[in-house]
Amino acid sequence: MAKYILAPLEKLTEQFERLPGIGHKTASRLAYHVLTLPEAEAEKFANAITDAHKNIHYCPVCCNLTDKELCPVCADETRDRSVICVVESFRDVSVIEGTQEYFGLYHVLQGVLSPMKGVFPDMLKIKELMARLNDGTVREVVMATNATLGGETTASYIAKLIKPLGIRVTRLATGLPAGGNIEYSDEVTLARALSSRLDM
Amino acid sequence: MAKYILAPLEKLTEQFERLPGIGHKTASRLAYHVLTLPEAEAEKFANAITDAHKNIHYCPVCCNLTDKELCPVCADETRDRSVICVVESFRDVSVIEGTQEYFGLYHVLQGVLSPMKGVFPDMLKIKELMARLNDGTVREVVMATNATLGGETTASYIAKLIKPLGIRVTRLATGLPAGGNIEYSDEVTLARALSSRLDM
Repeated sequence: MAKYILAPLEKLTEQFERLPGIGHKTASRLAYHVLTLPEAEAEKFANAITDAHKNIHYCPVCCNLTDKELCPVCADETRDRSVICVVESFRDVSVIEGTQEYFGLYHVLQGVLSPMKGVFPDMLKIKELMARLNDGTVREVVMATNATLGGETTASYIAKLIKPLGIRVTRLATGLPAGGNIEYSDEVTLARALSSRLDM
Repeated sequence: MAKYILAPLEKLTEQFERLPGIGHKTASRLAYHVLTLPEAEAEKFANAITDAHKNIHYCPVCCNLTDKELCPVCADETRDRSVICVVESFRDVSVIEGTQEYFGLYHVLQGVLSPMKGVFPDMLKIKELMARLNDGTVREVVMATNATLGGETTASYIAKLIKPLGIRVTRLATGLPAGGNIEYSDEVTLARALSSRLDM
């Protein structure tokens, strides 16, 4: 016997190995752990996966994830419907909500443009965003994609599409992070902080 | 709205968070990844968990994991039935099989003694091991628990139980690892390598 292989355990290991940031050794450790859980606990884990898939879908308005008909932001009558904040992913919405400084709506692109990775405009929720701008309620679109190459490219691409509609397009400021030290700041950040300097 | 919480996603995150070495941030990243998988892929993941639990059980002879009636080692007629190698866990069996130097049977304790963690002799498969030593076929028991405090304690404890039966009990050698450097070796390892020195 060359190696002691258990097919069901191997399969579970493979599943864990496909998750981001999980290598073969970790995957095999996790699979083994799940195997040694009590039956009911393992069942709970499996159900959590199926349930999440069954009960969560995209909000038909803003393409955010939701387990209701509309997402809580779109369903909230008190939100300012004249501003849309465009973000890359579901997680960004939570973070911006956490600031308690934004009261408009969102639009979740579900990714950024990346020709290298084969992500083109029609694979993002850009069509859905443009459709929301037709009825004249929206006066400003805040591009809140990441300050990365992909994020910047996507922001510029969308800004170019929106500007002809006469809607204001803004971008999150780049500059020193709060508490940031000039000495340890990188040159690009510092250059942008300089060029976007404000009157005091 | 304070926070944007999706109950099914939170539940899945909690499940990942209970795995060893997975913190809250990683768990939430993994849960989100699983959510964005195609439905069929997520189904496969959930099934891999349930299947592993359904199809894998303990070998009634050696307490190793198996998806057959007996584990492949116990089922193999050509193995030497006069030697039992006692290991802590399923993973140790794979490693020892990998050496292709051992042809006897195994016994998997499923843990080591640790009064601090509340692991006492009756929680390990020691009773099952003793039952295998009664019919006179076994002439040697190799204690292959780890060279850790728990492993050593467990080996000594079991050795004391077996010796009165007149069966030879041996222990894996401790010493320099192959390719090991004396200069970088710790004192305990070196002391043991010295005291177990062999004639050349």
